[in-house]
This record gives sequence, C-alpha cells and structure tokens, in this order.
Amino acid sequence: MKEKITVVKVGGAIVEDKERLSQLLKDFTAIEGKKILVHGGGRRATKVAEALGIESKMLNGRRITDADMLEVVTMVYGGLVNKNVVAMLQSNGINALGLTGADMDVIRSHKRPVRNGLDFGYAGDVDHVNGFELRNIIEQGITPVMAPLTHDGCGNILNTNADTIAAETAKALARFYEVTLIYSFEKKGVLSNPDDDNSVIPVITRNDFNKYVADGTIAGGMLPKLENAFAAVDKGVKQVIITLANAIDGKHGTIIKQC
Amino acid sequence: MKEKITVVKVGGAIVEDKERLSQLLKDFTAIEGKKILVHGGGRRATKVAEALGIESKMLNGRRITDADMLEVVTMVYGGLVNKNVVAMLQSNGINALGLTGADMDVIRSHKRPVRNGLDFGYAGDVDHVNGFELRNIIEQGITPVMAPLTHDGCGNILNTNADTIAAETAKALARFYEVTLIYSFEKKGVLSNPDDDNSVIPVITRNDFNKYVADGTIAGGMLPKLENAFAAVDKGVKQVIITLANAIDGKHGTIIKQC
Repeated sequence: MKEKITVVKVGGAIVEDKERLSQLLKDFTAIEGKKILVHGGGRRATKVAEALGIESKMLNGRRITDADMLEVVTMVYGGLVNKNVVAMLQSNGINALGLTGADMDVIRSHKRPVRNGLDFGYAGDVDHVNGFELRNIIEQGITPVMAPLTHDGCGNILNTNADTIAAETAKALARFYEVTLIYSFEKKGVLSNPDDDNSVIPVITRNDFNKYVADGTIAGGMLPKLENAFAAVDKGVKQVIITLANAIDGKHGTIIKQC
Repeated sequence: MKEKITVVKVGGAIVEDKERLSQLLKDFTAIEGKKILVHGGGRRATKVAEALGIESKMLNGRRITDADMLEVVTMVYGGLVNKNVVAMLQSNGINALGLTGADMDVIRSHKRPVRNGLDFGYAGDVDHVNGFELRNIIEQGITPVMAPLTHDGCGNILNTNADTIAAETAKALARFYEVTLIYSFEKKGVLSNPDDDNSVIPVITRNDFNKYVADGTIAGGMLPKLENAFAAVDKGVKQVIITLANAIDGKHGTIIKQC
C-alpha cells in the first residue's frame, strides 16, 4: 500500500492576512504525514504592482504577465510570500523548503502561445513536474512550499496558476503516494443550493458529477473547478477536497473521487 | 583526502547587469566539481525601494533594515535575484536550488541587538549554518544558490550580509570538504600599490598579512576584508581568493591561506 501525502493549495486572500495565514499554517502543521503546501499571492502582487505604478491587466479573469509584472510576481511569490511562509513553518517545527519550478528543475513549462490574439505574456503552461526529485526531498523529511512560478529551461521564469501547480504536482506524486489534494476555498465546499452556505455536498463521484451537471446543480465557475478535480482523479490522485481555508483537516468540505 | 568544493560570492553590481550576470554564471558553470553560489543584490533592492517610495537608510556603510525594507529585500534577494539566477543556471545544465537561511533551516541568526544607540533593524547575525543539510543536498548533485537572508527560528526573516553568508557557509562545510572561498570584487585582487591595478599580490599568508599590516601596505577597507578571510582560514577553509568577477576560475586574484 502506498504511503499517504496531502497537497494543500492556499489562495491569495489568506497569504496577505498575517493572522489568517498563521492559523492556516498551524492547521497545515497539524496534518499528519507527508505534505506539500502550494500558495498563491495574486492580491499581494497586485498591491505591490500598484505601489510600483505598474498596471495589472486581466484577460478572461486571468492576469496578463508582461515583463514588469513578471518581475513583480517573481518578487512577491518567490520571495515575499514564499520565504515568510517557509520561516513561519520552520518556527512550527516543519522542515520547509521553498520552491519555484526552477529550483531543482521541479516544474518545466512553456510560454503560453498567443491564440486568437489572446496574449497572456509570460504565463507558463506546465509540461512536466519532476515527481522523482520531489519524492526524493520529501523522503528526507522536507516539506516543499511551492510558489506559482515555473521555468522554461532556457533561463526564464514564468508565471503559473497556483491551482494548476497543485493539480500537476498531485498528479506527478500519484505514482509514489496515495495523494489527497485539498483546495482551500471561500465556501464550505460544493453547495447543492448556492444560497445556502450549509448545503455542502459531502461526496461527489464521477456519476454524481454527471448527474449534477445534467440537472444544473453544478454550473458556472464551479464547473471548470470540478472538471480539473476529476482530471486529477483520472490521473491517479485518490481524492480532491474543496473546503474552507480554516477546515483543511480532510474531514470537512466536499470530497471529489472516482467512485 | 577531502573532496573539493568552491563557494563563490558575487556582489550586487553584477546581479543587476543581465549580460555581466550571464557571463558570470557561465564562468561559475565552468568551475569543476561541487560548488555553491552566494549572491548579493543591495543595489537592486535600493532601486526597488526607491520605486516604492521607501528610503534606504545607511549606518556606518551598512543598510538599516526597517520593516518596509525587510519586505523589499525579501522580495528582491529571495525572489527576483535568486529565482532568475536559479533559472539561468538550470539553462546551463546546473541543478540549482535557491535557498534562504529559512529553507531547510540552513542558516539561523538572531536580530542584531541595539548597541550604543545603533539600531540596524531586521539585520540577522549568523548563529549556525547547517553544514549537514547543505552537504546532504550537495551530495545529491544539487548546487545551492544562497540569498543573503536568514531566519531566527521564530518565523522571522532577517537581512544578512552576503559576505558573511559566504564565509559562514564555507566554514560550516570545511569539516566535510576542502573549501575554496572566492570573493568577486571590483579589483583584480589585493594590490600592493593602490594606484596600480596590476600590482596584485598573488598569495598572502598569515605571516605576510602581519607584515603588510605593519608596513601599511594593507589598510582601510581591505583590512576587515582580509581579517574575515583569515577568520575563515582559521576555521578550516583551505583558501580564500579575492578576484575580479570575470576571473573566478581560481587562477586569478589574491590567494589568502594559512601558510
């Protein structure tokens, strides 16, 4: 039987609030066994860009990473957020190691091509996560803390969505471990009634999903999120959990699994 | 016989000039055997701080790191400079890993106490370099790229002089390796005549040093630099080389050694 590992993705709203971040890192510390933290930082990057007089341009709800913005996200994700999280985890007794995709070549990507005139700039689409290298350091008792930055192998850092980093990392580790991927979220989980915060669906299997999509229970922004979750499950991730940031213990939220 | 390792410290002027940095990283790549790169970034940090409207305050030629400046150096050293260097080394075929002292707890420090009214803010004086952990990753074929940031073990990042990081790292590795510590510098080496750039003293032993200090050949800013070099040599570092940034092959500059 494979050993368990938990990959937790935490978003930008948490990492810029020192108290909420501190609590989240305590909860992360309390997760038993091997684990990985993947963080965002978009809101903080937007603030720093603003202070530097750099405009944040969005396209279809995603950031356009021009050369100036690439410097900002490299500073904020790779430096400010990542290193503070690492230092805080160390003080909790977790032997954390901050990583971008460039470090130990753990995640290679390519610059997203311009399609239909849509140019996202220095955005990296993931080609390969080096699961062997990650396993190697994890087996030494080290906890990776991953920033949403990758590299193209030609010397360039690229900006990569944190949800994608988490999913691709979870998939790459599925051959070695029984992986639980936890997405922290602003709701308690996937809701059967969007107006009732307590209508959390505890488990969604592939069959449930098809049914919920057909009857319209799952729609809008939740649809791609769940499609991504099932894509991870298809690639061997045991389960994906969508839950509140203060409930990452694996016992709350919605569990997405094959069957 | 111990295996050799080379620790190269490169200053802030190089890292902000893309072409010079690229050349330096090629030269670093060409160094045979195990190696570590330690980088500065002070000039870049000053520029980013300026763009953010944060004043750079100096005290006795050293930066005062207030809370705002700590964020800037964490961004610039830990993110912007470190991750770009790592990505560039990866493209040279070097399996680089960017580290601050917080990562894998490799360098602990304490906040420099206020003495005689002199307050350097969030400046960290090094307590301990984890030579075992560094050796462990080096033995896996990984090349550490160290930013001048440490942590206090209580969740706080501290700003630490890059020369000190290089010297303390070299000392900590001396029990495992035959260490050469190379300081890249704006002169060809230690000069016997400050007006003649070609008057490089090829070797300075402890006896030479005492003689040169007594006769005034070595004075001013060179004095503490050489004292630090001999402090490293006293702790087992085989040799310290002071040389131009474009001559880090170990065959140029001034070699400082015990005898």
